[in-house]
Amino acid sequence: MNTTEFRKRGKEMIDYVADYIETIEQRSVYPDVQPGYLRSLIPEEVPVEPEMYEDVVKDIERVIMPGVTHWHSPFFYAYFPTASSFPAMLADMLCGAIGCIGFSWAASPACTELETVMLDWLGKMINLPENFLAGTTGCGGGVIQGTASEATLMSLLAARSRIVRWIQADNPDRTESEIFSKLVAYSSDQAHSSVERAGLIGGVTMKKVPTDEKFSVQGEALKKMVERDRRAGLIPFYFCATLGTTASCAFDNIIELGPLCNAAKMWMHIDAAYAGSAFICPEFRPLLNGVEFADSFNFNAHKWLLVNFDCSVMWVKERADIIGAFKMDPLYLKHDHQESGLVTDYRHWQIPLGRRFRSLKLWFVFRLYGLRGLQDHIRKGSNELNETLLKRINSTRKIHMVPCQLSGKFVLRFAVCARTTELHHVRESWAHITDLASELLQELPH
Amino acid sequence: MNTTEFRKRGKEMIDYVADYIETIEQRSVYPDVQPGYLRSLIPEEVPVEPEMYEDVVKDIERVIMPGVTHWHSPFFYAYFPTASSFPAMLADMLCGAIGCIGFSWAASPACTELETVMLDWLGKMINLPENFLAGTTGCGGGVIQGTASEATLMSLLAARSRIVRWIQADNPDRTESEIFSKLVAYSSDQAHSSVERAGLIGGVTMKKVPTDEKFSVQGEALKKMVERDRRAGLIPFYFCATLGTTASCAFDNIIELGPLCNAAKMWMHIDAAYAGSAFICPEFRPLLNGVEFADSFNFNAHKWLLVNFDCSVMWVKERADIIGAFKMDPLYLKHDHQESGLVTDYRHWQIPLGRRFRSLKLWFVFRLYGLRGLQDHIRKGSNELNETLLKRINSTRKIHMVPCQLSGKFVLRFAVCARTTELHHVRESWAHITDLASELLQELPH
Repeated sequence: MNTTEFRKRGKEMIDYVADYIETIEQRSVYPDVQPGYLRSLIPEEVPVEPEMYEDVVKDIERVIMPGVTHWHSPFFYAYFPTASSFPAMLADMLCGAIGCIGFSWAASPACTELETVMLDWLGKMINLPENFLAGTTGCGGGVIQGTASEATLMSLLAARSRIVRWIQADNPDRTESEIFSKLVAYSSDQAHSSVERAGLIGGVTMKKVPTDEKFSVQGEALKKMVERDRRAGLIPFYFCATLGTTASCAFDNIIELGPLCNAAKMWMHIDAAYAGSAFICPEFRPLLNGVEFADSFNFNAHKWLLVNFDCSVMWVKERADIIGAFKMDPLYLKHDHQESGLVTDYRHWQIPLGRRFRSLKLWFVFRLYGLRGLQDHIRKGSNELNETLLKRINSTRKIHMVPCQLSGKFVLRFAVCARTTELHHVRESWAHITDLASELLQELPH
Repeated sequence: MNTTEFRKRGKEMIDYVADYIETIEQRSVYPDVQPGYLRSLIPEEVPVEPEMYEDVVKDIERVIMPGVTHWHSPFFYAYFPTASSFPAMLADMLCGAIGCIGFSWAASPACTELETVMLDWLGKMINLPENFLAGTTGCGGGVIQGTASEATLMSLLAARSRIVRWIQADNPDRTESEIFSKLVAYSSDQAHSSVERAGLIGGVTMKKVPTDEKFSVQGEALKKMVERDRRAGLIPFYFCATLGTTASCAFDNIIELGPLCNAAKMWMHIDAAYAGSAFICPEFRPLLNGVEFADSFNFNAHKWLLVNFDCSVMWVKERADIIGAFKMDPLYLKHDHQESGLVTDYRHWQIPLGRRFRSLKLWFVFRLYGLRGLQDHIRKGSNELNETLLKRINSTRKIHMVPCQLSGKFVLRFAVCARTTELHHVRESWAHITDLASELLQELPH
């Protein structure tokens, strides 16, 4: 396929993609196929001679689509959201064309530097403490991981190296494997399976901290376990807090847990894969309070921030800790700028060596939606919508309310005021409000 | 951005990509920028309101391109090749639009099944032993990993679990951490840095086996180390062979090493990341002889097989081994078909949970190039070209040669025949052949 044909086929594919997204609602969200359905639909071996492009395209509807679970159908409520937007898709096309493997600064400076700056932008959007940002001289900084699983694993490996370094500094005779055998990591009993997995990969014990009735880990629960383990001669070294558990979107109490981890010299990683995108809205940001005590923090922009998979964003306070997990520099990866403070070699921050130019997606999405547009997507409703609802509520004259502004959000403020108000009045009023809200939502353009 | 605008912008992007590829030779292959160049070119914070698409596109040339190392420039000879082709880019667009996260069969049957079948196709293309293929009832099978680093790590973790299971079956009292502390893995002293890293992550000792004068590990070298370590009470459990080292493309002697590993009950993984694509040509396939002794095998289709990054293909003989490395099944990932033999849940085969629909790239590339087209790409020259060269050699009448066919390849056969032939004749003849070959290559359309 030469460039002339690519121009033609590429434009046809753009139309196919647009058609797919426009009509996705008409497809059955879950496929009606049995395991093994696909093998019988295509040949058993590769064709020796090239096929016609038209035949390949025809097979998308014949072979692929009948077996697709449509994650972007508005009727898809399974698992978790995975983000998709046109700006991100356009950026991905550019990423594919540039096709650089940005494992070091020199391997593609633009790829590395845009990532650092975009993670600073995003860090500011969620008001992360300054020491998580790279800036031009910072010790911290952000990185795009493929998935939250990798972010958790990286943080655990960094914590494991750090504790071994600390212990061996005082006791040079203690071997790594003896220390490993005593290490204990902790996470919520509601934490994602990838956290348990990180423990298995790293060869350390991972204990589950019991949660309260709201599925949230409280300080006391962790404290008890850590103290008991210390008395037994074990070495607590890592806690993975979850903000937004997979099962019920529960939040661990990091304001309590953070200082506890700091005092115990345990690494605190925060996994907010599922819920973290919401922190770009000031009204949700209080849920992140306590992040200042963390060593590392991660969420999946590819879940809820309109950036197509994969784009899991992670920040660390001390980049030396994460690089220290396993820095190695073979000669063929060395370059002149390696030792400069401005240069980031992201291969030391992640499990794989190779990496795509994923920050282009962030850049396109941030600029083409703007912070406001992204906040609207999280809120799934605008200030204007709330204002209209309040006008209707007040114009029907059944109940009366006034609004307030909270961190830039127009809030309908329901205060119980009269001496004579009883529970049944409140219930009736709430039913009235939800009726009017439903009416309003149904009038919106689809 | 709605679908109407996406149709317009997408087609413009297709043209931009085509232009980029067509004119890439005119760009400086290595950027002339200093560390930190990008930060000063863009704002310090995200825009609050959406920007115009035109402004974002203008910034590609202003901000990004000056800092790009052009991996697809014909003047790029650094690091290693990374594949790129138009069919793969088209497939990636489709992958982005479908945007499924295929961690289990149910999460998108097409995504899972096409991957299994494409890895079978590719396995047959390189003539892998039958027990590496999935088929409909096989115990083995293939998977797409992001990078060879991940494939190596997965194989090491699978090997680590297997040896612990074996040892604990006979000695239930031995703890995992005691066993870990005695495990030894081995690889060539020429192996990629990611192999050493896999050892660090897995918390096991990784020893480097000295290579011979051709940078190749021979059986005797490994045997000595294994025997010495066993006598010292250690547990050799894993060897990573390299076919095509990064520095010099050296090949370990797997025909010797394989039986040795099998006899010692050590896992043999073969890392052919760099060179493996060549095995689709019958004339290179002998270099893979010995793969029948391996437990797992991997190469990077995204290096040399025209499939854009990331697409690192891996096969295992016993899928139970790799799944056993850390199988966990939380409730929200369960589905009806889970226990059927036909169903593959690839989340158990890899480090991340999420995964893209990468097999579409293989499918497009395989069909649109055909096996023949892919072989031509590896050979970077056709049988026809060789035939023409031979005709010219013989028509100049200075020397005389006859051809032969080896595994479908037209080979120019240079036999030293006459009693009177001396070294200077051979040198002169070789100079004559290379002159004619150079002339021929220069006449080719660019």
